[in-house]
Amino acid sequence: MAEMVYDVVGIGNALVDVLAKVGDTFLSERNLDKGNMTLVEAAEAGKIYADVIPERQVSGGSAANTVAGMASLGADCAFIGKVHDDELGQLFQRDIGAAGIDFFTTPLTEGPATGRSVVLVTPDAVRSMFTYLGAARHLTEADIDEKIISEAKMTFIEGYLWDEPAEHQAIVKACELAHKHEKEVAFSVSDISCVIKHRENMLSLIKEHVNILFANEEELLSLFATDDLNTALNEVKPLVNIAAVTRDSRGSVVVHGREKIFVEAEPIENVVDSTGAGDLYAAGFLYGLNRGRSLGTCATIGGITAAEIITHYGARPEVSLRGLVRHRLMEYGKRP
Amino acid sequence: MAEMVYDVVGIGNALVDVLAKVGDTFLSERNLDKGNMTLVEAAEAGKIYADVIPERQVSGGSAANTVAGMASLGADCAFIGKVHDDELGQLFQRDIGAAGIDFFTTPLTEGPATGRSVVLVTPDAVRSMFTYLGAARHLTEADIDEKIISEAKMTFIEGYLWDEPAEHQAIVKACELAHKHEKEVAFSVSDISCVIKHRENMLSLIKEHVNILFANEEELLSLFATDDLNTALNEVKPLVNIAAVTRDSRGSVVVHGREKIFVEAEPIENVVDSTGAGDLYAAGFLYGLNRGRSLGTCATIGGITAAEIITHYGARPEVSLRGLVRHRLMEYGKRP
Repeated sequence: MAEMVYDVVGIGNALVDVLAKVGDTFLSERNLDKGNMTLVEAAEAGKIYADVIPERQVSGGSAANTVAGMASLGADCAFIGKVHDDELGQLFQRDIGAAGIDFFTTPLTEGPATGRSVVLVTPDAVRSMFTYLGAARHLTEADIDEKIISEAKMTFIEGYLWDEPAEHQAIVKACELAHKHEKEVAFSVSDISCVIKHRENMLSLIKEHVNILFANEEELLSLFATDDLNTALNEVKPLVNIAAVTRDSRGSVVVHGREKIFVEAEPIENVVDSTGAGDLYAAGFLYGLNRGRSLGTCATIGGITAAEIITHYGARPEVSLRGLVRHRLMEYGKRP
Repeated sequence: MAEMVYDVVGIGNALVDVLAKVGDTFLSERNLDKGNMTLVEAAEAGKIYADVIPERQVSGGSAANTVAGMASLGADCAFIGKVHDDELGQLFQRDIGAAGIDFFTTPLTEGPATGRSVVLVTPDAVRSMFTYLGAARHLTEADIDEKIISEAKMTFIEGYLWDEPAEHQAIVKACELAHKHEKEVAFSVSDISCVIKHRENMLSLIKEHVNILFANEEELLSLFATDDLNTALNEVKPLVNIAAVTRDSRGSVVVHGREKIFVEAEPIENVVDSTGAGDLYAAGFLYGLNRGRSLGTCATIGGITAAEIITHYGARPEVSLRGLVRHRLMEYGKRP
């Protein structure tokens, strides 16, 4: 058995988020889909980018945000994802390295540029993402490093990795390697549009490979084509060991065997930008799980870390999550 | 600080259960209340007793059943309760000693006989109890042994102890002593008729003294005068640290701070006699809690021990609960 080096290795799109505040009319005038993630080509991304004043550029990507959150909590993490060796690619590498995360995936030196997500935040704090995947979608089986997978207690995969057959093969390979080394696979559904486009495929992957599933309520309902939460929870129950379902201001619910654990949301005064809420919930939850905490406490930690991320722009934490979580757990009368 | 000797000390009515199977007409002809506990005088108890063929006589009493269940799980327990030094009193002492439970309360040598509960079980497995408390209601403050309370991690009190002012003073003293020694108080609501008769008093005791509350759904709804479970759960939440609410075939729900944990019921083929289901749920739950298990696992263990008790007559386990619980937890993929 390999020596355990990492708590989690994340696999996902290596993206840089370009954040900009816009009014609702900006979206409606351009017929842009509000509240979801829309994949765009380089040209369209460039056009949207040209029309906004970027608030800031920060490294993003769903699974990358999750491992960055876990690293801020004190976990040891690695990341697998594809950038181009260009300016944004170097920004991504610098950020993830500064977060203390091992990132060894060979960057592209030709072909598409580093992927970017133009994140338009309307005054209601809803984020509408227009993502040019670029280099990110060129992740292939060759990038799935068996040594890293075998050295991590858990492999965390984001659901955005579905569009290229080669990417899909890469994540199936990652799952198979994780199981070969008796490690767990966590999977985040990521986005309702992914579910709608890939429902059957996604359900197969979940059934065959996923031990721990993350989804929000809307995604879970869509996955099982129902509008009743309890029905969806009962459907997902036999497929995975743990399913953690986020429910915005209603908190989250965790399904594990015969248990359904409802946990209230963190109180939040002002939601600034909901980008990364799901990613950071997963970070807090998996951190708790790695530390052997109860599922209720895992969901509580996820709620704390998600709450931090949505009170500012960007999906990378602005305070030490470790300190924040300790403080909040003590306030809840829990062991920090 | 006193040396810790006991996991739990139970305080309750020391009763012997006289079990008999009857048809529904037996109850209706005699105008006997079905499904609950009715207090009767010595004469009426004798009259019901004379009309039935006792299946068997076994030691009972709600808190006594709970500590007997915990002892069968391997916990160290003591019991405080009042018998008369008569034949049934000696039966009670023999049974509780054989279960490995310390029982030092001085028996009455004059006055009322040892309490007994005529438990009539109808073919639908519902138990209707007609209880002559006798000596049991003569428990007073003098019987609350500070040394035993100080030596137990937790004091468990049954809700049946309400009818005599002296009994009520005794349980308040037990609560105060437990808190004085920084120990927890667990309280079981026991019976809907107790709630109806003593709602305000019971709510005060819960607010002031109880850390861990056991109730079934009907009792909880009655306690907060509502017919909505979620409302009742939100009402009980700020009053106690943990509330565990049993829901028959729908399992149980545990409220703890911001968490509500719903756990499915154990599958049961044939319910023979529901006597002691709540008592044994509390036994399994508290055993898990004492062992530092998650609240979901505590509720699971409670479900397992409750399920054992209702598949046979009587409220004392017929198998080693320790072995049963280990086996079932492993089947659920949990650490035994």
